[in-house]
Order: sequence, then structure tokens, then C-alpha cells
Amino acid sequence: MTREQLIEQIKLKKSFLCVGLDPDLKKLPKHILKEPDAVFEFNKRIIDATLPYAVAYKPNIAFYEALGPRGWNSLQRTLGYIPKDCFTIADAKRGDIGNTSALYAQAFFDKNASGMSFDSITVAPYMGRDSVTPFLEFKDKWVILLALTSNEGSADFQHLVSNPRLSPADIDAEIPHSQVLLDTENSYLFEEVLRRSQTWPNANRLMYVVGATQAHLLKRIRAVVPDGFLLIPGVGAQGGSLDEVCRYGLNADVGLLVNAARSIIYASSGADFAQKAAEEAKRMQQEMAQYL
Amino acid sequence: MTREQLIEQIKLKKSFLCVGLDPDLKKLPKHILKEPDAVFEFNKRIIDATLPYAVAYKPNIAFYEALGPRGWNSLQRTLGYIPKDCFTIADAKRGDIGNTSALYAQAFFDKNASGMSFDSITVAPYMGRDSVTPFLEFKDKWVILLALTSNEGSADFQHLVSNPRLSPADIDAEIPHSQVLLDTENSYLFEEVLRRSQTWPNANRLMYVVGATQAHLLKRIRAVVPDGFLLIPGVGAQGGSLDEVCRYGLNADVGLLVNAARSIIYASSGADFAQKAAEEAKRMQQEMAQYL
Repeated sequence: MTREQLIEQIKLKKSFLCVGLDPDLKKLPKHILKEPDAVFEFNKRIIDATLPYAVAYKPNIAFYEALGPRGWNSLQRTLGYIPKDCFTIADAKRGDIGNTSALYAQAFFDKNASGMSFDSITVAPYMGRDSVTPFLEFKDKWVILLALTSNEGSADFQHLVSNPRLSPADIDAEIPHSQVLLDTENSYLFEEVLRRSQTWPNANRLMYVVGATQAHLLKRIRAVVPDGFLLIPGVGAQGGSLDEVCRYGLNADVGLLVNAARSIIYASSGADFAQKAAEEAKRMQQEMAQYL
Repeated sequence: MTREQLIEQIKLKKSFLCVGLDPDLKKLPKHILKEPDAVFEFNKRIIDATLPYAVAYKPNIAFYEALGPRGWNSLQRTLGYIPKDCFTIADAKRGDIGNTSALYAQAFFDKNASGMSFDSITVAPYMGRDSVTPFLEFKDKWVILLALTSNEGSADFQHLVSNPRLSPADIDAEIPHSQVLLDTENSYLFEEVLRRSQTWPNANRLMYVVGATQAHLLKRIRAVVPDGFLLIPGVGAQGGSLDEVCRYGLNADVGLLVNAARSIIYASSGADFAQKAAEEAKRMQQEMAQYL
């Protein structure tokens, strides 16, 4: 899907809602569990119910992978069921050395090889440039790089403050750090991920994951990536605020996809789960419409 | 598998060789491609041929995932074929928020759920503590955390120098950095990953990925993790030196698993591929035996 097509859908539906398709067998309504492919049946009804309000769907791959090969079959059927005018995200958080990342890209982008072709995939940045660029080689496909995640552990490493001018040689030689550190180039690790990735080939195919629980840091992120799209998890069950996200995150092309999973798909655990999911998705869409 | 069992195997075989099972359809011998499950047949013959010389097998999950559900079936069959006295590594580089990492752990550790139970899994650290700890909850299972990888891009972020005493508040307030940075606590990101992860619950179930192409940094790593096991990729096709790895990496319990994939499994692309794989594995085992 192109950027223009995504923006068109957002304007059409007055929504930048992404629904997380994270079907946990322990939480699915009992009557659905009786179906031969319960995971697909659940997703199908959630998609039907939320389609007027959502522009994107994001299956988190862990929920399918945990079920072994049958989970991958449910994932394939789910992707096949999502209408083509919706943006699809494989939330896989993959990343490996170059020749291996190329195979992960094949798994999620190349229908001939794996049976699936998502519009985008989430990728972890720890292994650097050559672990990400193989995903960027696909036209009209998107790489959504982890920048600042919504979980508590994001502070462990993403918040570390580094100075890109301090080289490994400096630290080994124990040169006076005052020479290189008394400047303004100190930055968070997540800012360094944004800055460096913006210089990689096909960087125009990058989006970023930015947790809504960190909305006050969105200002810093928009300073580095003013035009890009951000995927924002953490609104809903994880406690992020849509108002803060919009205040700091919206740009001229909207530039946001806000994901909600548990608060929508498990709005009810009864026979009315799809109806309750639709109501919650509609509530979020209407809130979003006010900012557009 | 327990640490004691792994060490016993290493002593028995006089080897710390791990064979990477990375079956690329483009590289498999032609006569194997005619088999109904070519990937499994290839792996089976590689395992048979290298078993006297290897203590561990490491399927890189990307190579199976790229083939869709049938790839997962080949992976399950492969894992089932590896003898129980070998250490098995799911090279998956997973990692997500806590409830999601728990499902990835289920995918690779819980046979009842997914059909597979590896001894260990590789995990990416970017999302921090709560993205890793769910994997650490399994008794006699191991988490092999990415520290310093063997690819060129490892320098992008893993080599960034940070100061853990410099907090986000400091950078926002623009306090004089000289106050906090003129000390000796500056460290590479990968060192911070080692240090912090060693404080997490069940840290005794951690091993680390350390690329052999970075052998000169092994000294720094052993300063933080003197007793732990390190998984060393990058010897062979990626150019790392076994001699350097042993010089800086060996500890009293050996503490190393050295992985080779391409140099063994593609030693020949002809009908003699298994025999050539055995010869290369034997050559590496004999080199390793000299250091034990």
C-alpha cells in the first residue's frame, strides 16, 4: 500500500485506528472455541465488526506462532480475509544478520514463498543497518522500526543517553571525556535509532513504533521525524492517552496509526463480543475524528 | 538441559561446536530438492554426519518461517530428530512486551502448545527487562540474549557509548554534563545489556550471543560475565578466528558454544554434501580439542 492510499483511507473513515488481532485462546469467548479454526473465526468477526472504524489491522505474530503450524494457517486465513484497502501490519519484531533478515522479509512480504504478503512488518533495531535494510527493498511495503516501546522495560536501554561522537577507540584509550561530551549531541538511544535509520537506503519506507505511554517524548521524536508515520501502541489496556498522542504526534498527513487490541477485541467475553468490539472501535474512531 | 549436562557433552566429544541448521532452498543439493520434505531430509543427513563432532544444533527460524506453515512442519520434524543429549537452540531473536514474550516462550519451549520444546532461544534485548523475563521462567531452559552480534551493523547501536548515571531528566534539563560524565562508568550499549540483564530474576538461565568477528571485545565481555556461556557465531563464513575466541573467551567450564553454519552445511553442493559437512565439522572439532 502506498502512503497516499493510507492517507486516503484515514480521511475516508475519519480514523487512524489500528486493531490489534491478538487472539489468546485463554480469552476467546467459549462458543468460538468450538469452531474448528477458532482463531480465524474470532478474527473474522472482529474484522467484520470493526471495519467501518479501522484503517489498519495488526496481528501480533506471537499469538499465532505459539500454536505451532496450525497457528500459521490461522494467520494466513486472517490476512486473506482483511480487505485490501486496509493497511496490514505483521507485528513480528524480527531482525537478524542480512541474509537472514532477507528470509524474514520473504516470510512476511513474499506470497509466493510463504503464502503471505503484509503491507508492513515491525522490526527490532538492535543489530543495526544491515539487519533492517533487506526489509526496505520491497516497493510499497513498510518497515515499522521499534524506537520507543510502550512497556516498562523500554527504559532499560532505549532511554540510555549516548554520545555518537564518543567512539569505542576513545573509551579504550581513556581519553579525557570532557573533550567530546561537553556538547549538545547527547541523545537517547531511541533518538539515535531514529537519526541513523533515516540515513539508510529507502528510508522513505520507514515508520516507527512509539509507545503512547511515552507521549511526552513524542516532541523529541517529531523533531527527528517530522513527516513519517508513527505506530502508537499502548492506548487502551496499557494506559496511554489519545489526547497527548495527538497533541504531540499529529502532522500534516496525520502521520499516526494508533493501535488498540485488548480494549477492543476483549471488550466482552460473551456472545456479544463482536458488537462490544464495534462499540469500542466506534468510540475511539469518534474521538479520533475530532482531531482530524 | 542443565549446565552440567551441557558441560558433560562438551568433555565427552571434546568439542564446543554448534552446527547451524539454516537450509536455504537455493543452496540445497539438487537431489535433495526432489524429496517431499527436502528441508528435513537435508537437516537429517547433516545431523547424522556431524553428530560425533557437535554438541549443539541451532536452526535459524527465519529459514523455516520463510516457507510458511510447511517450514514450521520441517522445523518440528528436525527438532524431533536431534538426539536428546544435544543442546538445541531456536535462533529466533524474539522479544516483545511481557504478555507477548510469554507467548513466544510458549512457541519454543512448550511442546503441548506449539509442538516444540527447544533447550534455548535467542532473544533481542532492545525492549528491556520485561520483554526477556518471561523466557527466563522455564526450568532447565536457556535464554541466549543478543549482546554483541557478528554483523557490520552491530556497530550502529551496540557500540554506542552511554553513561548509565546520566538520566533522561538530566538531558532535558541540560545540566552540565561534566558533572556526570567525567567518570569511569561510560560503557558500550552491549556492556549495559550484559550488566543489567545479570540483575534480572533467573539470570542464571542467561547465555549471550557474542560475534566472533568482535573477538578483541571478548575481554570486556568476560569482565562482566566471567562464568556464563557465550554463543559465538561468525566463525567460518563470516571470518571470525577460533584462536582469538578461545584466547579471550574460554573459562573454567569452557563457557563457549561456537556456531558454524554455511562453512559446514554447504561445504559441498553435490551428492557428497553430508560427507564434506562431516569433514569440516571434524576439522573444527579437532581444532577445538586442542584448547580443552
